[in-house]
Formats: sequence, C-alpha cells, structure tokens
Amino acid sequence: MSKVLNIGDTARLTRAFSDADVRQYAELSGDHNPVHLDAEFAAQTQFEQRIVHGMLVASLFSTLLGETLPGHGAIYMGQNLSFKAPVYLDREVTASVEITAIHPKRPIVTLATLVVDSEEKTLVQGEAVMYVPWLQRADAA
Amino acid sequence: MSKVLNIGDTARLTRAFSDADVRQYAELSGDHNPVHLDAEFAAQTQFEQRIVHGMLVASLFSTLLGETLPGHGAIYMGQNLSFKAPVYLDREVTASVEITAIHPKRPIVTLATLVVDSEEKTLVQGEAVMYVPWLQRADAA
Repeated sequence: MSKVLNIGDTARLTRAFSDADVRQYAELSGDHNPVHLDAEFAAQTQFEQRIVHGMLVASLFSTLLGETLPGHGAIYMGQNLSFKAPVYLDREVTASVEITAIHPKRPIVTLATLVVDSEEKTLVQGEAVMYVPWLQRADAA
Repeated sequence: MSKVLNIGDTARLTRAFSDADVRQYAELSGDHNPVHLDAEFAAQTQFEQRIVHGMLVASLFSTLLGETLPGHGAIYMGQNLSFKAPVYLDREVTASVEITAIHPKRPIVTLATLVVDSEEKTLVQGEAVMYVPWLQRADAA
C-alpha cells in the first residue's frame, strides 16, 4: 500500500448512536455509568437525558483514521480529546479528521479531529497523531 | 450521591481483550483496520501480530472513571492519550487512574491515566479531566 498525503486532506463520517450501540459499548467496556444507561438518573443531571459515552463518540476518530485517512495500516500514536458538549442518543453527528502537519522526515502525520452536530456546534475536539508506515512523500512521488 | 475525593486516590482494573472483544469493537465503531483483525496483514507490520484498537484499550479509563473513581455521575471533560506500545490480544493489562489535582473552586478533578502490561511496561499514558457534580470538599466534609 502507498499513498501520498497532503496537508488539508480531510475525511468525514456521519452517524448516530442508538440505545443498542450504547448498551453494547457499556457491556464491552464495562462502563455502566447511569448517565449513559438510566433515563431516570440522567433526567436528574445537567443533561436532562441519557448521553452517549464520550469514548464511544471518540471511536469515530479511530474509524476515520483507520479506515479512510490515513487508512488501513496506520497506527495510532496519540489522541487528545476535549468533550465540549454532550452527544444525545439517536442524534446525528459528523466526525471529521484533517491533516494539519506531516513530519519532515518521519512517516508521522498530525490531524485535527472534530465532532459537530447538525448545526455545526462543536461536541468533541482534539488532535490525533498517526504513524503511517506506507507514507509516500509528495516530493518523492 | 456524595463523596470526598483526595489527591492520590487511585483505582485500577486488570483485563485482557479477546478476539471476540476486538471484533465486536470493530463492528460497533466501524474501524476494521486489518492491523486489528487480519493476522496475515498484521504479521507484515512492525508488531508482527494483531493488536487491540487503541481506543478500545482507552475505554478502560472511561470504565474506571465512570464506575469507580470518581464513579457514577462523573462527566468526561477531556482525555489525552499517548499510545506508547501495542496491546496484544489475550494479554492481561492493568489500567489505573490517580487523582493528581482537584480544582480549588469548581467540581473538577484531574487524573493521571496509565495502562501497563504484567511487567509494568507503559502501554498507554495520559490524563483525564472529570466534572464531578456531587463532589464534596474534604475541608467542608
């Protein structure tokens, strides 16, 4: 596999998380925090309803980074996450990743990562660093 | 719910991720990067075998933070993740969170987050920031 990557390259993905998704993630991770699972408990919180696990929302970045940009074979080196606003169940959100830097010598790429709602409100913001073993340099292509 | 939290409070959790866990996370997240799923592909990488999705490993932090420390009702504000070394399938790893700071006025707690293998080698390192609506101050307890 080889592919040229450029600063500004972007990939995005829209999806909603269902009750089944949230329950499956709770089982898989062991995180049964009732703010995610218990409507009565969640009604008493600042959010007034159940919210999706932040780490499940953040999995959208892993998906975009592993599937599309950089894509298969890329290895996660780091991810910063800032959870700015809750993601409610069954609400469509759009995740995006955009290349902001390519290391001058090593096959390492930095990407801005963002999740917004349908009104472009920022829900999750951060930055990813990926190791891309198959990276081909534009100037060597 | 109310609870006093102190700097130095720690929680930890040991588990391994099975083939079934990794496949379930791939389905749930949509991240089918073959370094996680395809033994033949993974054999050609620097890791020489399949590795667990970094974000699935990081879910251990979400679990500790949501279940134990601070515990139910705590809300994720942020998480930094540095993936230092791969987590292989069926290998026991231990995640820990430790309170490193409590905001002087707001109910906000910072925790060091760490995943190590059975030989104490660091695999994932980072920091979490949690909003803890039920936080009770030690000096007001």
